[in-house]
Amino acid sequence: MTEALGPFLRRALRWARRRPAVQAAAAHLGLPSAEVDIPEVTPLQARASSFGRPRLNLLLPTIRPSHVFGGISTALHFFDRLKASDADVRVILTDHDWRGEPLPAALAGWPVRDAGDEDAPGRCIVSLGDRASRTLAVGPGDLFVATAWWTAYNAQRLVPWQAAHYGLAPRPLVYLVQDHEPGFYPLSSRYLLARSTYEYPQPMVGVFNTGLLRDFFVGAGYPFAASHAFEPELNPQLAAVRQGLRRVDKERLLILYGRPGVPRNAFELVIQGVRAWAARDPSAAQWRIESLGEAHQDIALPGGARITSRGKLSLDDYAQALTRAGLGLSLMLSPHPSYPPLEMAEFGVQVVTNRHENKDLGARSPCIHSLGSVTPETLAAELERLAAPWRAADRVAVDLDAASLFAAPGTAFHFIPDLRRALGLDPAA
Amino acid sequence: MTEALGPFLRRALRWARRRPAVQAAAAHLGLPSAEVDIPEVTPLQARASSFGRPRLNLLLPTIRPSHVFGGISTALHFFDRLKASDADVRVILTDHDWRGEPLPAALAGWPVRDAGDEDAPGRCIVSLGDRASRTLAVGPGDLFVATAWWTAYNAQRLVPWQAAHYGLAPRPLVYLVQDHEPGFYPLSSRYLLARSTYEYPQPMVGVFNTGLLRDFFVGAGYPFAASHAFEPELNPQLAAVRQGLRRVDKERLLILYGRPGVPRNAFELVIQGVRAWAARDPSAAQWRIESLGEAHQDIALPGGARITSRGKLSLDDYAQALTRAGLGLSLMLSPHPSYPPLEMAEFGVQVVTNRHENKDLGARSPCIHSLGSVTPETLAAELERLAAPWRAADRVAVDLDAASLFAAPGTAFHFIPDLRRALGLDPAA
Repeated sequence: MTEALGPFLRRALRWARRRPAVQAAAAHLGLPSAEVDIPEVTPLQARASSFGRPRLNLLLPTIRPSHVFGGISTALHFFDRLKASDADVRVILTDHDWRGEPLPAALAGWPVRDAGDEDAPGRCIVSLGDRASRTLAVGPGDLFVATAWWTAYNAQRLVPWQAAHYGLAPRPLVYLVQDHEPGFYPLSSRYLLARSTYEYPQPMVGVFNTGLLRDFFVGAGYPFAASHAFEPELNPQLAAVRQGLRRVDKERLLILYGRPGVPRNAFELVIQGVRAWAARDPSAAQWRIESLGEAHQDIALPGGARITSRGKLSLDDYAQALTRAGLGLSLMLSPHPSYPPLEMAEFGVQVVTNRHENKDLGARSPCIHSLGSVTPETLAAELERLAAPWRAADRVAVDLDAASLFAAPGTAFHFIPDLRRALGLDPAA
Repeated sequence: MTEALGPFLRRALRWARRRPAVQAAAAHLGLPSAEVDIPEVTPLQARASSFGRPRLNLLLPTIRPSHVFGGISTALHFFDRLKASDADVRVILTDHDWRGEPLPAALAGWPVRDAGDEDAPGRCIVSLGDRASRTLAVGPGDLFVATAWWTAYNAQRLVPWQAAHYGLAPRPLVYLVQDHEPGFYPLSSRYLLARSTYEYPQPMVGVFNTGLLRDFFVGAGYPFAASHAFEPELNPQLAAVRQGLRRVDKERLLILYGRPGVPRNAFELVIQGVRAWAARDPSAAQWRIESLGEAHQDIALPGGARITSRGKLSLDDYAQALTRAGLGLSLMLSPHPSYPPLEMAEFGVQVVTNRHENKDLGARSPCIHSLGSVTPETLAAELERLAAPWRAADRVAVDLDAASLFAAPGTAFHFIPDLRRALGLDPAA
């Protein structure tokens, strides 16, 4: 618009734009305000502490019960093992202040302190949700364990402060990495900031949720000084059911991992694939199709079939579904394997999933079918192919493999004694 | 929630959820509806045409004047050259129906037809915005040129239809690629669908906006049967100003490429970098700081400096800013170089930008400083370093390089004769 104005008018306009009253009017008229703050990276300011002993600090966005599953649950489990029997330990809540909700089992009985309270020995939870207005007491012996990328972003500014303030070499940062988090965003400021946390030039130990994810980070050239990886264990309740099974009669039941709220599970594409299958394969109308994960409205399909949303199932119901289902479909755009395709394959479900970067789960089990190019058409063709055995029979018997796709129970964190020694928490062997 | 209910209640709930009245109530109460449609990939249905001669078809989302710049302008320019003097040519508008707006210069005087009109020879624009309700006439000689990824997605379904309907081998698809478009999205359904257009298994000729972008696609292993690349040319109006310059006095003017509406230009991080610079470098207060690109509200900085938004400048004003500015900051998360850092360097501006995948513009000019890890702190340190010469002097004289970073005028599309022959539009030499 300003292109059409002469230089004088443009100068006048620039002058006017600097007046507060004009800016207020501009905001009122809808000229975009400059939204430049990224709340996650609001600085977490440190203050000196007289507490001098070594102390592990887990940085966690929240412990609200509705958030304690998946990644946060795994982080609590890992930290519970890492802290061993240490007397002095903190869990720092960076995003959500604690408001009296029940504590997770791993933290039962821990006192919750406000970040402004005086620093003290012992185990505690420090509530720092509104961090713009508060500071965190940091002593010379504090060691940070980061989880979500913005907790690492903050830790990577606490560690240099600590080193400068106490005249120390920067203490190693432990970074629990459970996904390649820049992929949660379009290429954008947040993508760059998330990525920068993997490029931190000071000492950093990566603890990766799966060797597959670690391999991706190595391939990407991120400079972790040391790294450990742990493999998924099958949930004990599912393992108990699975142990009793040798040969199962698989029904015409297709289970979908359906999470409309999680972009990397590609819900729209899952449904479009099923819809395309229903449109091309008349036998699709004979199948029950259930979406597990998040509740959503049911979806009618061409040919009379229907996707029934069952939401988040109880473990009992999930075990039942895994046992009965002949087919599964579960997408995950991440260099992490994700649990559902592995759980489905463990129960003899023929599951369609996607390849992604260095991930190709098809190599792990004959039950997993991983597509290179995912479109409604390629998904439909694969479902049609895999559904063929049920055209002639209502049930298809499957012999389950004795070998498991999961790590043996209790073996995941075998590296913790080494890690504690490297952090100076235990004496060298 | 359903975990807390017994099996009977869960069954009852499932039964109830299937009733239309319950679904309506659920929708009313906010149970997420299953949003599974991705409007961009609404199928573009073909119908047979008696028009049999070879005919180029450009698939373009829109020709609305407010959209005809950047990528769409380049697409029209490329197509104008590709069509040469062909008598029969179509431009198909896939997203926005034409509503009487002025036509771009390259299409001046072309008749605009509705997709439902009878197919006819000659040059025309076909308006197909509401494509769910209309069909496109496709003859055996139609050749498609795709632009945005969803136009390729649709073309990749038209070509097999054409091959099957007329009993032909699939005709080659020309795909004008101006960015790696999956990066516009988080890892999600749209990311997968955009990506699938590069994985199309039928004959496809890539025409890449820059060799840098082509190199990225080659590195990613996408299977283009053939490819061509063109390099940016400096805008003729800017080139005319630049030609008259040998030695310029650079002022304390920092220009930012500031586009709050385009995530890959990382506006928040640009501003946070400038803010961090203003906080650490007292000399920053002496600089004029102007944001060019999209209008937004002005932004106050620590120390009294201020970012003034100038929006989209006229070419005259842009040339003035390029001539006077001592420093620039322009981020672009793409394997495409983007024009502003090259334009700034061409005018002797010391410009800070980012590396990305195979892109490192720092290798092209001593005026370009490309950062590997972009954070507010790394941006601020680089600005402070580059601003040093202006601490002692109000103006710093710069001798401009005789060599240009841009392609010589008129050379970009040198490959078009080869491409026309390969498409069968001109006889083999």
